[in-house]
Amino acid sequence: MAVGPDVRPDPAPVGGVRLGAAAAGLRHPDRLDLAALLLAPGSRTAAVFTRNRLQAAPVHLARQHLARMSPRVLLVNSGIANVATGEGGMETARASCRAAAELAGVAAEEVVPFSTGVIGEPLPLGNLESGLPSCLDDPRADPEAWWQAADAIRTTDTRPKAATRTLDLNGERVAVTGIAKGSGMIHPDMATMLAFAATDAPVADEPLRALLRAGVEESFHRISVDGDTSTNDAVTLSATGTTGIPAIESVTDPRFRALGEAVTGVLRDLARAIVADGEGATRLLTIRVNEAESTEEADRVADAIACSPLVKTAAFAGDPNWGRILAAAGSALTGEVDWSRVDLDLGEVRVVSGGSADPAYTEKAGAEVMAREEVPATLNLGRGAGASWMWTCDLSYEYVTINAEYRS
Amino acid sequence: MAVGPDVRPDPAPVGGVRLGAAAAGLRHPDRLDLAALLLAPGSRTAAVFTRNRLQAAPVHLARQHLARMSPRVLLVNSGIANVATGEGGMETARASCRAAAELAGVAAEEVVPFSTGVIGEPLPLGNLESGLPSCLDDPRADPEAWWQAADAIRTTDTRPKAATRTLDLNGERVAVTGIAKGSGMIHPDMATMLAFAATDAPVADEPLRALLRAGVEESFHRISVDGDTSTNDAVTLSATGTTGIPAIESVTDPRFRALGEAVTGVLRDLARAIVADGEGATRLLTIRVNEAESTEEADRVADAIACSPLVKTAAFAGDPNWGRILAAAGSALTGEVDWSRVDLDLGEVRVVSGGSADPAYTEKAGAEVMAREEVPATLNLGRGAGASWMWTCDLSYEYVTINAEYRS
Repeated sequence: MAVGPDVRPDPAPVGGVRLGAAAAGLRHPDRLDLAALLLAPGSRTAAVFTRNRLQAAPVHLARQHLARMSPRVLLVNSGIANVATGEGGMETARASCRAAAELAGVAAEEVVPFSTGVIGEPLPLGNLESGLPSCLDDPRADPEAWWQAADAIRTTDTRPKAATRTLDLNGERVAVTGIAKGSGMIHPDMATMLAFAATDAPVADEPLRALLRAGVEESFHRISVDGDTSTNDAVTLSATGTTGIPAIESVTDPRFRALGEAVTGVLRDLARAIVADGEGATRLLTIRVNEAESTEEADRVADAIACSPLVKTAAFAGDPNWGRILAAAGSALTGEVDWSRVDLDLGEVRVVSGGSADPAYTEKAGAEVMAREEVPATLNLGRGAGASWMWTCDLSYEYVTINAEYRS
Repeated sequence: MAVGPDVRPDPAPVGGVRLGAAAAGLRHPDRLDLAALLLAPGSRTAAVFTRNRLQAAPVHLARQHLARMSPRVLLVNSGIANVATGEGGMETARASCRAAAELAGVAAEEVVPFSTGVIGEPLPLGNLESGLPSCLDDPRADPEAWWQAADAIRTTDTRPKAATRTLDLNGERVAVTGIAKGSGMIHPDMATMLAFAATDAPVADEPLRALLRAGVEESFHRISVDGDTSTNDAVTLSATGTTGIPAIESVTDPRFRALGEAVTGVLRDLARAIVADGEGATRLLTIRVNEAESTEEADRVADAIACSPLVKTAAFAGDPNWGRILAAAGSALTGEVDWSRVDLDLGEVRVVSGGSADPAYTEKAGAEVMAREEVPATLNLGRGAGASWMWTCDLSYEYVTINAEYRS
């Protein structure tokens, strides 16, 4: 189940990026579960990782490698997360990088590993190694290669996820393309999600990190499926620089903003695709909180609403249960609250005025909005100028099914 | 569905406490939905309320009345929460107190109102008033009266909840008896729950408040069903003083501790009954976190585990998915964590040693523990001496059903 049609536009190829995928039998036979993104020499890569204090072996190793060298291979497996696997897990991650490096003709530290899947089980190194040639020997740059890689990094995702933008910089066509996986354990500050984006624009390290940070702030930090955060999350942005334009060396470069819009657009498309494909999701909610005392308060309130199981089960039922939205907001507020200043809209329908049901509101009007696949909910707190927003999905039977049966 | 058998022992009558219940048709016809606890003259009552910043009209009014007079009537309705109902809701709450006061022959401010149920809908005052005579005209002190009141305050609870203790103080038999309701929207700092406990011991205001605070800390602040907090929660403890012993005037009175154990015991029984009857619950988990850096850290980690939908769906499946427990803990920790010092037990089975699966651990052994109706999970963090614990239940299909259909 997922919200909206499964549209798969052609991702724009990115100069200097080639991809490969393989069915390595890491957890399930005959399913793509290993992918590699090969980056041209001279590429720069920025990355952000989960803030969960339980971090997977590949996350530790990825940080080490990224600190030392600029990556040439991003190696991603699904099925097994390689977390809570002790020193053996670290050794497996290192060995997988060594094996990939040998095939790709690069240094082991130029390979950056990523894993997603079940926690606590060992990653079968032999299987992984047997899949490496299919990934690395004949990588391709075409849209199908992007989709295959997107397919290989899935766990409970029902759809592969890719997004793309193109723009002109200095008269040259520049591409920004990314893939992502993620379906459950999704929450701000990352989640069980991985995303890999790349552009063929030349961008120096500092503005590249700024592009990634700004994009993540408006995309992956805005989504919640179940409020859980994960051990393996990572988002990377690579700039191969294969277009022949002058490099963007600073955030003050006027081209930074245009490229930033494209990067943020790609990351937002990917983040939105993750929520729309949230485990068991049948409905996508956009929670907007305005007029909070501060941005932090708005963030807190939006988060509380987006994560409330009561709000999410009501959404599953198509029930315009606005009291649960207000109660969730109340749980996140502190100090005195003047509820007579609080309004709530569901879509174009004014539901709450001054803290209680709007006189003109009818359940029928609210139910009509809630029956839609996408529902915007806008809460105005009347306390100040702080604003925030979140994407979330409903909580359905299927969420329970998926997570009760995931390991079996 | 609920965990464990539905045992209904006889609550010990409490001198000076009489109860009545009525079917007032507030939301459903022919269902007990109104209850009153009548307290003898001279009774003292302590109360704690929800910290949610959206508070029901009766919560506001109850605070006002408690600040001015010692209550003689606790008036409780289910069905309608009377929250987000504006000034009209306050007026309805006031009118209900006036009507009850007239029948009971007390001042309106000696009536303290409590409501639980649907948010945002008006409380039908006429119906409530029509039910008052059945509640107030012939109140009784016997066990059946306690059970009827417990029945009347239910919303989605599948069972009424009562608990009781007796003890000797100064050679006199003293009773502590309480009733509670609560099933969803359950979280520390109160929840959609109400509890009313009373003793016939004579206790002055200060030690009475101390008894309540200490009891709540070890009971209602330890339970989580869905992490949502509510707009109407309240716990009260009344001391009627009808036993002829000298009053407990201070927390240093040696009898304070004995009475405290009884009060905490009653509140714990009630809190546990709420989790065991958590919406859709099939399994009760006791999460213990030891060796945290501080009590606060232990609280945070226990809370994160107890509230994780992934932990709770795994529990529903009887899946010893220990990786999710570690990941939830990781999400609540900050700073450097040495996972090689972390152990996890499920019941008597050592599952994780030094941050990864214990060499002797088998899925079969873990699954045997997880198949039980009650599962203790103990996480030792190896960071210090902070400890905490929480009760939670699993997340099942029925939770979704109940909350998707609650208003229909």
